[in-house]
Amino acid sequence: MGSEHTAKAFDTDLQELTRLVAEMGGIAERMIVDSVDALIRRDVTLGQRVVATDAELDTLQKRIEERAVLTIARRQPMAVDLREIVGAMRVATDLERIGDLAKNMGKRVAALETDFHPLKLFRGLEHMTDLVQQQVKSVLDAYAAHDLPAAMAVWKGDEEVDAICTSLFRELLTYMMEDQRNISFCIHLMFCAKNIERIGDHATNIAETVFYMIEGQAITDKRPKGDMTTFATTVPNT
Amino acid sequence: MGSEHTAKAFDTDLQELTRLVAEMGGIAERMIVDSVDALIRRDVTLGQRVVATDAELDTLQKRIEERAVLTIARRQPMAVDLREIVGAMRVATDLERIGDLAKNMGKRVAALETDFHPLKLFRGLEHMTDLVQQQVKSVLDAYAAHDLPAAMAVWKGDEEVDAICTSLFRELLTYMMEDQRNISFCIHLMFCAKNIERIGDHATNIAETVFYMIEGQAITDKRPKGDMTTFATTVPNT
Repeated sequence: MGSEHTAKAFDTDLQELTRLVAEMGGIAERMIVDSVDALIRRDVTLGQRVVATDAELDTLQKRIEERAVLTIARRQPMAVDLREIVGAMRVATDLERIGDLAKNMGKRVAALETDFHPLKLFRGLEHMTDLVQQQVKSVLDAYAAHDLPAAMAVWKGDEEVDAICTSLFRELLTYMMEDQRNISFCIHLMFCAKNIERIGDHATNIAETVFYMIEGQAITDKRPKGDMTTFATTVPNT
Repeated sequence: MGSEHTAKAFDTDLQELTRLVAEMGGIAERMIVDSVDALIRRDVTLGQRVVATDAELDTLQKRIEERAVLTIARRQPMAVDLREIVGAMRVATDLERIGDLAKNMGKRVAALETDFHPLKLFRGLEHMTDLVQQQVKSVLDAYAAHDLPAAMAVWKGDEEVDAICTSLFRELLTYMMEDQRNISFCIHLMFCAKNIERIGDHATNIAETVFYMIEGQAITDKRPKGDMTTFATTVPNT
């Protein structure tokens, strides 16, 4: 009876943790979309709302950590149960970082409020954002459903995002070279592109956490890496 | 006797955790210094060494998390003891992120291998790095010594770093406007400056963890925020 009670109490604790992670995931996804929308539509109010929302994610992350630690202390879970708790903590940490990166983009909206605002420069960023948002959504679904193949698809798909980021950097650099009025605008977009790319990295971290939860060990394969943005900015010099 | 045994076992576990955090701290500090040294001296080998070292930090962070979780499950610590364990996990997460940021700078060394390499542009970055490295060192000492006033000094000192970063952005932007050959070089330095600033943010996170460990609650004061880099890039347009 005692251990049955403990098992039931553990399940309740775990459900609550999973619910909190899903709540964080919903907020983080919204922040990604809103921050890029705010940039494109020069919507300073929306940008500020993204900045303000970040505090919710921080609070939720701390609450998840707190509950996870109490669950470990009270229920002393082993093996797969323990990995579920550690997994929830890890995913919460990645979602909190995603929020920070979206917040940074939200802050840039006010800085971009100039008349000079070529919409075509946003296309690459929009495309990247669509891809990354889909990855975040897919990996959170995979986490909730314990779907390892779906998580691994996200893990492998990161290469495409990195490649788009690299080509976007090249394009932005060309605009900067062409006309110095483009410079400050393009720098902001470069930082935003890098933020989106980093959000993609956090999606792959979450995929690795799903692997760890299900397989009981860290993933050992080298992740495909298409990111060449640290080199992209030197190309047009040649 | 039983509880005395548990207390002793807990102390041993905690000492091991603290030792591992100190080990991570030493590696992270070295990575900060080496990455900026590599940039300034165009030392690609040193840059690559920084990139390679990051894996050590990742491994240590996972080991700290694993040991922390086992300690919580086995010893069921309460109150201040529990906060010590959670604190070790949080500091390890920040140090792992610091490593990622230094690694990103290490990667940029190879991209900066051009003949055009104005040393004066590095001065601001060097100054920022000295300050931030000092902050990381001080806050890790404060963590090890449970020195709340020392941690709070780091927490408040972040403003200066942010102000230097903002003025460095303005300076770099001016060079970009002057001569388009400076553009790609200055973009790299901007990303590096932003990385250094973010390392400073992690130092303040660690200061907040020290506060939480000692005071048993989250810090509520608003941290002074001098970072205006998201605005700095628009100024020379006026």
